[in-house]
Amino acid sequence: MGRIETRLAELGITLPTPMAPVANYVPFVITGDLVVISGQIPARDGKVAYTGKLGDAVPMDVGVQAAQLCFINLLAQLKVACGGDLDRVQQVVRLGGFIAATAEFTSHAQVMNGASDMSVAVFDDAGRHARSTIGVPSLPLNAAVEVEGMFRIA
Amino acid sequence: MGRIETRLAELGITLPTPMAPVANYVPFVITGDLVVISGQIPARDGKVAYTGKLGDAVPMDVGVQAAQLCFINLLAQLKVACGGDLDRVQQVVRLGGFIAATAEFTSHAQVMNGASDMSVAVFDDAGRHARSTIGVPSLPLNAAVEVEGMFRIA
Amino acid sequence: MGRIETRLAELGITLPTPMAPVANYVPFVITGDLVVISGQIPARDGKVAYTGKLGDAVPMDVGVQAAQLCFINLLAQLKVACGGDLDRVQQVVRLGGFIAATAEFTSHAQVMNGASDMSVAVFDDAGRHARSTIGVPSLPLNAAVEVEGMFRIA
Repeated sequence: MGRIETRLAELGITLPTPMAPVANYVPFVITGDLVVISGQIPARDGKVAYTGKLGDAVPMDVGVQAAQLCFINLLAQLKVACGGDLDRVQQVVRLGGFIAATAEFTSHAQVMNGASDMSVAVFDDAGRHARSTIGVPSLPLNAAVEVEGMFRIA
Repeated sequence: MGRIETRLAELGITLPTPMAPVANYVPFVITGDLVVISGQIPARDGKVAYTGKLGDAVPMDVGVQAAQLCFINLLAQLKVACGGDLDRVQQVVRLGGFIAATAEFTSHAQVMNGASDMSVAVFDDAGRHARSTIGVPSLPLNAAVEVEGMFRIA
Repeated sequence: MGRIETRLAELGITLPTPMAPVANYVPFVITGDLVVISGQIPARDGKVAYTGKLGDAVPMDVGVQAAQLCFINLLAQLKVACGGDLDRVQQVVRLGGFIAATAEFTSHAQVMNGASDMSVAVFDDAGRHARSTIGVPSLPLNAAVEVEGMFRIA
């Protein structure tokens, strides 16, 4: 078992079978040493586990869990992109966080920390990434959060 | 006539004269083998052909047409980036879809399929791309959809 | 003093001490010859200088100033990425503009011009960039504008 797989086990993170895209696109594209991964929603076992808006029905801690699940789904796709070996990941380059939120919501960064904190927990310094986080009025399938990612691999 | 131009003709797609940016930026930047293209709105003959919001006045099929037109406008810019030869396109790396939508709308993916399905129709496997699709409250000039793209060329 | 620093002085632009991220990520990641910089909000002296929404309490000229300040904050991070020497910047590749706006707002492009015009003023032709501009319902800390950037350096 590789170094990152061992770390995932220590953290109690189980990677799901990667979700198939809900439309005519692919989960990731590799270009040069970069893996560009499609926006992941907080789906588990084929259904969206976290729906609704921050600042409305979704409390902060649930939003954080949604962001964590998005990151876990990114990892599942990334593992496939790496041919099964997550130790090939050199750097989490960028995460883009889309938080379904009301016009009054202001704590988007704390929600997105669910993904960012897990990135550093899994990859240490290689998990420190550039990041943009924004609010959105609505997401596909009423997802509460969506996270996209760019990764450099060896 | 090149392979992709022939395909476009078979599909009945005519590329417009690329639209000039509405502000102080450029339609695309080439860096290495990547072409990064500015967000395209569904404009035709110098005016926005599809305005309004999904989930409100814009029905699904019209949203799909708007996404198709955004992709056609991306292709027109991409052709210029390729010096007129679309056969140089190696891969559609990523499409970003911004759907002007209400807070209640949930079918963003189906709207964005207008762009994704056309990408695969035009470029076959090289048209399969990573994708992020989100809702937005409003877009420049009241556009119903905006699509940005990253492409790898030879 | 370098060429770009001289230009900044001529334009009366003083770069601030780069703001630390408000969460567990980093201001930028360098991958190959690209610098990917995290979304910057219009913060000055540790607080957000421009809050609220375009189309509501924030008038156009204030939105433009907010976009300018976001770009200045990008430059401050970029200078660090360049080891202090902004003359290493080869190209502003892409700016992403997120405008906190109402559903009725349509002038996102003019707001984002605050960033784009400054990019060209500072870097001349190398400042001409690909760009995507969208409305968002809300941003971290109630920021009025957020701008992310990708740059190529030597």
